[in-house]
Amino acid sequence: MRVRHKPWAKSLLRQHSEIVIASPKFYSGEWYEVFGREAPLHVEIGTGKGQFIVGMAKKHPEFDFIGIELHESIIVSALQKCLEANVSNVRLINADARRLTEYFAEDEVDEIYLNFCDPWPKHRHEKRRLTYSTFLAQYEYVLKNQGVVNFKTDNQGLFEYSLESFSNYGFTLRNISLDLHHSDFKENVMTEYEEKFSSKGQRIYRCEAVCND
Amino acid sequence: MRVRHKPWAKSLLRQHSEIVIASPKFYSGEWYEVFGREAPLHVEIGTGKGQFIVGMAKKHPEFDFIGIELHESIIVSALQKCLEANVSNVRLINADARRLTEYFAEDEVDEIYLNFCDPWPKHRHEKRRLTYSTFLAQYEYVLKNQGVVNFKTDNQGLFEYSLESFSNYGFTLRNISLDLHHSDFKENVMTEYEEKFSSKGQRIYRCEAVCND
Repeated sequence: MRVRHKPWAKSLLRQHSEIVIASPKFYSGEWYEVFGREAPLHVEIGTGKGQFIVGMAKKHPEFDFIGIELHESIIVSALQKCLEANVSNVRLINADARRLTEYFAEDEVDEIYLNFCDPWPKHRHEKRRLTYSTFLAQYEYVLKNQGVVNFKTDNQGLFEYSLESFSNYGFTLRNISLDLHHSDFKENVMTEYEEKFSSKGQRIYRCEAVCND
Repeated sequence: MRVRHKPWAKSLLRQHSEIVIASPKFYSGEWYEVFGREAPLHVEIGTGKGQFIVGMAKKHPEFDFIGIELHESIIVSALQKCLEANVSNVRLINADARRLTEYFAEDEVDEIYLNFCDPWPKHRHEKRRLTYSTFLAQYEYVLKNQGVVNFKTDNQGLFEYSLESFSNYGFTLRNISLDLHHSDFKENVMTEYEEKFSSKGQRIYRCEAVCND
């Protein structure tokens, strides 16, 4: 995603510390206190401009959602969507998803969403893909037993790689769709990117990988 | 595949008992005696008219191949291809693949090929799909540890189902291709069916499922 510098972003993020959690490590193992209730915890890695997570939060008021996004100029759009939608079950973390195990305790998370992450197609960049084994190890750590990674991409190569990577790591695959928008899956909430690319007729790939620890 | 009755098929199959093995159970655990050597054993389930297995046998003289096909009017074409190609490393079994564990001993087989098998798209026919768990149990039994099921289809629904089924059963997935004929996989030998359908621009899906027993 193109990152346009927004000098006012930092200030707006700070003003809304009730949504954008400044010290996520502080709440590791105790996110239920932030939400003021014990509900299943769903985490999106690479939340972008927030269309997906806010859409999910509206559709599933019974779950709590946390979106992680590195770029403040992007996550500020997710914050704005949260404010407009007036949802109480979303929090945002403006930080690096590579430190997931610092933000969440073992077995704290019910579901993870990876939506249209960077495919890093060059072999020498394999370790940067969010479905590389070191990332799967982090997901396994924070996910409950039978917790789920929900993975969606338009990139064929990344999808092939990710199915193999999940399988190798010992996750069980289910609900694989090789053409999501022409499938029976009715629960889909689209990301901004997904709307743009699927409208050009490109296939969207999706799967769920179940954690067996 | 359309089955045209060939009244002369049975007679030709019998004439070539050196290739079409009449009593496969008799050789369970001792197929190396049939081939007169100890070589990796590759088995194709649903050999059809034999283009794939004969092509593989020519390409890989270091392996021994056994093709199983139920219909005598179809397997007779595979026999004719074997005779024309004069290959010494192919044998055929005119029988039902559902009885695989009667024809092969535990850990006797190195690789299995499933090419364009019937997708049985209706849910109530799931048990007939060659990647249903009862079939996978048979493959696991006859395959060596780290043995491979090579699976190829043009049917998207069957491929999605099969990836999940392999994963659930505990096979590890590798070399997944969601568009085989536009991939880096250079080793492909086409079946008759594959030539026909891929020429119409349909995607061919392929994966390898590794047995971990």
